[in-house]
Amino acid sequence: MSQPRRSQTVKVRDVAREAGVAVGTVSRVLNDHPTVARELRERVERAMAHLGYEVDVTAQSMRAGRSRLVACAIRDFDIPRFALFIKEAEAVLREAGYTLLLASTTNRPEVEIALLRAFRRRRVDGVMMTLSDEEHRDVREALSEAPMPVMLIDRDRIEALDRVTADHRQGARLATSHLLGLGHRRIAMLVGDIKAFPSRSRLEGFRAACSTAGITPDPRLLRDNVLSSEDAYRATASLMSLANPPTALFVAAMDMLGGCLRALRTMSIAVGDGISVVAGSDSDLAELHTPPITAIEWDLAAMGRHAATMLLERMRGDEIECGRALTVPTELIIRGSSRPVAN
Amino acid sequence: MSQPRRSQTVKVRDVAREAGVAVGTVSRVLNDHPTVARELRERVERAMAHLGYEVDVTAQSMRAGRSRLVACAIRDFDIPRFALFIKEAEAVLREAGYTLLLASTTNRPEVEIALLRAFRRRRVDGVMMTLSDEEHRDVREALSEAPMPVMLIDRDRIEALDRVTADHRQGARLATSHLLGLGHRRIAMLVGDIKAFPSRSRLEGFRAACSTAGITPDPRLLRDNVLSSEDAYRATASLMSLANPPTALFVAAMDMLGGCLRALRTMSIAVGDGISVVAGSDSDLAELHTPPITAIEWDLAAMGRHAATMLLERMRGDEIECGRALTVPTELIIRGSSRPVAN
Repeated sequence: MSQPRRSQTVKVRDVAREAGVAVGTVSRVLNDHPTVARELRERVERAMAHLGYEVDVTAQSMRAGRSRLVACAIRDFDIPRFALFIKEAEAVLREAGYTLLLASTTNRPEVEIALLRAFRRRRVDGVMMTLSDEEHRDVREALSEAPMPVMLIDRDRIEALDRVTADHRQGARLATSHLLGLGHRRIAMLVGDIKAFPSRSRLEGFRAACSTAGITPDPRLLRDNVLSSEDAYRATASLMSLANPPTALFVAAMDMLGGCLRALRTMSIAVGDGISVVAGSDSDLAELHTPPITAIEWDLAAMGRHAATMLLERMRGDEIECGRALTVPTELIIRGSSRPVAN
Repeated sequence: MSQPRRSQTVKVRDVAREAGVAVGTVSRVLNDHPTVARELRERVERAMAHLGYEVDVTAQSMRAGRSRLVACAIRDFDIPRFALFIKEAEAVLREAGYTLLLASTTNRPEVEIALLRAFRRRRVDGVMMTLSDEEHRDVREALSEAPMPVMLIDRDRIEALDRVTADHRQGARLATSHLLGLGHRRIAMLVGDIKAFPSRSRLEGFRAACSTAGITPDPRLLRDNVLSSEDAYRATASLMSLANPPTALFVAAMDMLGGCLRALRTMSIAVGDGISVVAGSDSDLAELHTPPITAIEWDLAAMGRHAATMLLERMRGDEIECGRALTVPTELIIRGSSRPVAN
């Protein structure tokens, strides 16, 4: 073996020579590429240790501008259904040699900005993220300054960025039309933060269906900013305590059904007979409830696959137009919880 | 302003002088510390840009050995209840100025090893993780070589590492004793991978309760490696198709209740009357099912809080003994799904 040298002077080609492998193999080891055989990796690592290369590893990755990391920043770790998106995106990225790291924005612009900065510092190769507010000036500025490709998850209004969305407007329109068709006129709607695309679109779909039917919705029956199970519980309890309560509840925010059903049970209001219920997203709870709950469904795994694929194209630097938008359709699964309004 | 210089020669103290701030302020900006006022951060960033400091940022972080990142690697993104752990751990870490990044091991040793290597390369300050198999030689070696503190989540048998566990043995013992007390003798048990602590402990608790009652469990009623909703569906369907089917199902793996209930519904077997059911973890589904499902419960948020706190102590380098173990208790919530065995 050659004599160890000071790390500052050791180059990738020195490691390659020492290990008796190609320079590309050393690069793949440095980038944690999954195709490197264990024996080969160990030989390269021994050579690096012998030559004192360790300190230069990150510098090398910096020069190449490659960390083989993709970051996904979502508003909350607490959205079970979103795991379908993550799992599928991760599978596609892993296949391409990337590790997916997940972070939570806690739905605050200042955290979104801080994360973008941290990702940049750590030389993350690509980012997928939600935004708490597409119009937030500082967030838009941070996005425009990001040196790596950023892909929006279920957000729009930022023309320059690629995005994958679900057609929430269509889903909400279908759900509302279904309830109107059953004779409901007092339909309460629970949505999340309408500063962001999903809830904004759901509200548009709800209003479009009402407008088509010539109905003016009662503004007292709309509850927004329903972002947790406790919010859904309180909104439902408050709605059902009105002098003139709704005959149908459209729980349009994602994964908020539990809080709503808990409130109805506490108040001894029977789903189906006492009140019709439609969930904004499908779940084991909706499917296995008695009666089963009518729900809006869309393919989150497909969204994850498309998001990862589009981001990979962008990270490769393929010559493709800016601001591509892909929308997956929504559908309504009609079950026993939505029934004709009682006379 | 002073004349820009080549980045290689620019030091943190040059940036501090240029920006007219303390060296500590520059460090806090470099580490994305949340307490730095925006105006101050921008002044430092302007000074860095002017002096061409950018390239040295990661190098500085490398020398300080500080990324202000903590990584959490769990077996699957698809475990809704685990979000309680993550959210609480993240809140504690964020308060201390750390960003939590989540990765999935897909429950494979080779991914666990590759992630440990990637975390090390990216100078992650601390790691919390699950392991697919505490006895895996290569994983143990990778853990022993990790330069940063590693905290085990719900795993044991690695004496040198801090760990936070739930008392799954006790939970399974309570659930089994409860069913035995109702007269059940043919109790089927669905568990995950018994190479890892949670399922191994649950099986021990089940066997301990049977042994105390002088019952020898029928090995044909034990199904392990139940790791997905589909696995739970198939295991339940197969168990209920036996010539001598069980009178009670103990679905001990986390978040596997949905698959089990779906199979029972498909086979028109009524929960409570046709078969008693106990869930290994509580959920909206268990609570809001008709009849509600008896379930084992433990405080995952407390586990997350303890894990983050213990890891912070370790990252600070506090002088504390090696291999601290903290266990949170489990309890049984008895509901309508577990009833006396039919005669």
